[in-house]
Amino acid sequence: MNLKKIGRFIGQILLVEVIFMVPALIISCALKETNAMNAFVATIICTLSAAIALLAWAKDGKGGFYAKEGLVSVGLCWIVMSIFGCLPFYLSREIPRYIDAYFEIVSGFTTTGASILPEVESLSKGILYWRSFSHWLGGMGVLVFLLAMPSSDKAGEGYTMHILRAESPGPDVGKLVPRMKTTARILYGIYVAITVLNILFLLIGRIPLFDAVCTAMGTAGTGGFGIKNDSIAGYSPYVQNVCTVFMLLFGVNFACYYMLLLKNIKDVIWDEELRFYLGLVFASIVLIAWNIRGYYDTLEEVIRHSAFQVATIITTTGFATTDFDKWPSFSKAILLCLMLIGACAGSTGGGFKCGRALLHIKNMLRNIRAMIHPNKISAVRINNVPVGEKPLNNINTFMASYVGIVIISFLIISLDGFSTTTNLSAVIACFNNIGPGFDAVGPTCNYSAYGILSKLVLIIDMLAGRLEIFPILVLFSRSTWKHR
Amino acid sequence: MNLKKIGRFIGQILLVEVIFMVPALIISCALKETNAMNAFVATIICTLSAAIALLAWAKDGKGGFYAKEGLVSVGLCWIVMSIFGCLPFYLSREIPRYIDAYFEIVSGFTTTGASILPEVESLSKGILYWRSFSHWLGGMGVLVFLLAMPSSDKAGEGYTMHILRAESPGPDVGKLVPRMKTTARILYGIYVAITVLNILFLLIGRIPLFDAVCTAMGTAGTGGFGIKNDSIAGYSPYVQNVCTVFMLLFGVNFACYYMLLLKNIKDVIWDEELRFYLGLVFASIVLIAWNIRGYYDTLEEVIRHSAFQVATIITTTGFATTDFDKWPSFSKAILLCLMLIGACAGSTGGGFKCGRALLHIKNMLRNIRAMIHPNKISAVRINNVPVGEKPLNNINTFMASYVGIVIISFLIISLDGFSTTTNLSAVIACFNNIGPGFDAVGPTCNYSAYGILSKLVLIIDMLAGRLEIFPILVLFSRSTWKHR
Repeated sequence: MNLKKIGRFIGQILLVEVIFMVPALIISCALKETNAMNAFVATIICTLSAAIALLAWAKDGKGGFYAKEGLVSVGLCWIVMSIFGCLPFYLSREIPRYIDAYFEIVSGFTTTGASILPEVESLSKGILYWRSFSHWLGGMGVLVFLLAMPSSDKAGEGYTMHILRAESPGPDVGKLVPRMKTTARILYGIYVAITVLNILFLLIGRIPLFDAVCTAMGTAGTGGFGIKNDSIAGYSPYVQNVCTVFMLLFGVNFACYYMLLLKNIKDVIWDEELRFYLGLVFASIVLIAWNIRGYYDTLEEVIRHSAFQVATIITTTGFATTDFDKWPSFSKAILLCLMLIGACAGSTGGGFKCGRALLHIKNMLRNIRAMIHPNKISAVRINNVPVGEKPLNNINTFMASYVGIVIISFLIISLDGFSTTTNLSAVIACFNNIGPGFDAVGPTCNYSAYGILSKLVLIIDMLAGRLEIFPILVLFSRSTWKHR
Repeated sequence: MNLKKIGRFIGQILLVEVIFMVPALIISCALKETNAMNAFVATIICTLSAAIALLAWAKDGKGGFYAKEGLVSVGLCWIVMSIFGCLPFYLSREIPRYIDAYFEIVSGFTTTGASILPEVESLSKGILYWRSFSHWLGGMGVLVFLLAMPSSDKAGEGYTMHILRAESPGPDVGKLVPRMKTTARILYGIYVAITVLNILFLLIGRIPLFDAVCTAMGTAGTGGFGIKNDSIAGYSPYVQNVCTVFMLLFGVNFACYYMLLLKNIKDVIWDEELRFYLGLVFASIVLIAWNIRGYYDTLEEVIRHSAFQVATIITTTGFATTDFDKWPSFSKAILLCLMLIGACAGSTGGGFKCGRALLHIKNMLRNIRAMIHPNKISAVRINNVPVGEKPLNNINTFMASYVGIVIISFLIISLDGFSTTTNLSAVIACFNNIGPGFDAVGPTCNYSAYGILSKLVLIIDMLAGRLEIFPILVLFSRSTWKHR
């Protein structure tokens, strides 16, 4: 294990974090929020010292950096980043307990949006901004950001690739262009552009700039932290619809946008994952709208709420305009299934991912056909390209780990005595980075009632979910740390 | 598709069913239960006519019989067998609606034990016997029984193998001996022997012979239909403990008993699946006993109820001595997980199977190790024998189909408007052939409130669960029936 190289990496990430904390500090200063301001100053000093110490220690790091180091770096980086990132919440006393502050920032960085706060409107603006910004940073990934920087390190392609692979969502991070660094830049470019577009559309709806920026950041990262106690419910139908559309847009594989930029429209239209995703969205909206038709006065309301909830759940955002926990069982069942599937690979959304689900279904159908006609050999194809057996096997491993982690987490948090629905949906909502679940963790409730052990489990679930399990599994695996 | 050979097969099965209905008829006659007696006579005439007609039509059947035909035969055979098997319930008017009678007999044959009856003590003895006997017949499999018969057909080894493979539970039906027919006989021999032992132990507890036989048949098939309204709760602690022990015994891979007969004790002791199963049982009993210690007066009661419920759930039997739906969340969470895992492969129990879970976990760990050390190649081993990639891939297909069927079933039955816990546990309890779930389908409730569509879905789930998915999937697959 090349500890020094990993250390240098984490040091750099902390520097990035410090830089991104400055706008929050400025907001606090401008609005004269003394507590928040002091907290940000103290945090910046702490983080900067830690970063400098780490970089000094790791200065003479030599040797290789392979897949193992990539996975461990990413896992550690997110944990350490959150240790410092939650300090503003804690030091400003706006979240009095450290474990709660840590839960909140992990929920932010992992774009989960599960909160331990019963209400958010009493928080200072600086803190609210930092809380929403954590979604934006976590959405595309802070490490991908670092890679996009000009010559942040004289790192080779392999180094860059191992990091990008480990942090980016999706079963199979395609290189958009041959150079990984360029890929990272293109991804961030598209990300910034759509976020700005989102802010503009929200401003047209006449909401304050601060609200627009925070809401857009929550949407972009498919995070879900709102800055109002009723999330998005208090905004106008126009604003709600803008959120619906942009949540869905951020749930699309970013490679599709790149292809659009290259005017490669045909490939986008025929992309199987995109069709699967949009088909699922459309079918769910129609079925839920039919199911809840008696719950609202007008057809417009029915469709708006149905579309918003489908978008917020399938993209794993977690905003709310209505308490879907009160909807009929069929609608709740659809939402529960969408929670499990999640958005497209290569988007900022979480979950199992549409691409993975599609591959899984195709592999299953292929194997059943092989049972009926044992002599016919056929490959699984996505977009007419045959998929090798190794990615298929990886997806199966992913699924097995997924089920295993859900079961173990569910067992542990059951010790706190909440209902089965609460516990199961809490684990799924955290692991898939959604945020609200059902029952006692439903859209109008929060996670504060869980004990410390359960919160730790849910924190690990959020991290494992955002980093697609393996970096966290590798980090905690004995085999990683064994000397040989 | 060789329809005539399949037809002959189903005709033979119906003959077997008629023969097994005779004891029920005799009981009805002896106890002068006129309605039941008439129902059995009518059913026997119907079934016999159908069997003769089928056999006459299929007399000149020629051509091959391959894996596809094996899967389709097994799937169809169970459906047809149930169509006739439920007639006694329906014709005696003891279950007035045909769909309910069909649900009840499928639940019996598949050894699920989910009932639509609010109470059973008003049923006639002949009907009660037939209901419990369906568990015994379904447990080891009626087709396996047919194969064990002397020269029931001049069938080749391939024919026998395709049937045995398709009907027997477990990821990988080992041939105990080179000849499949002998394997089938050994399996039934062991099955009969342990059932008789079970009856004897129950008789020592001074319960009536009829009760002992019915309870033993429900235990042997790991079915769960009781003949009392309170299932096993009214019997003495001794009888409950006998049930616990025998449920666990019937959850063990029958190959282990065969090895014991051959005095191959070392292999049994070191069998990894057996250790996994017993370890799981022991850990669950201890954890639940600790969790429910405040719910009962004495330690004996705590351990007895904990052990009984663990045995009844992990072996997917479904007997009850207490309402575990009232237990704390942690115990319910453990039981829910045991429901999913199920008993050993090659036993009469249902579920995902311990052997499959073990292979899944080992495969997952292997793949994670491969991520950390990409240059080390290692095989998955069970009992020190390397497992090929094909069985591993099959297990993944099984898991994918399992998840897919659970999701689709859950969505459809949600239309009936019961709670999420009810619907999810109903699907899992039926699919894994357990019987009782939680909430509105808990141990003290029944399935009668579901609508016809939901009952049909649950019937398909029970069949798919008992036949390990593939025969039912193949039966309903377009590709099976396509002419080429």
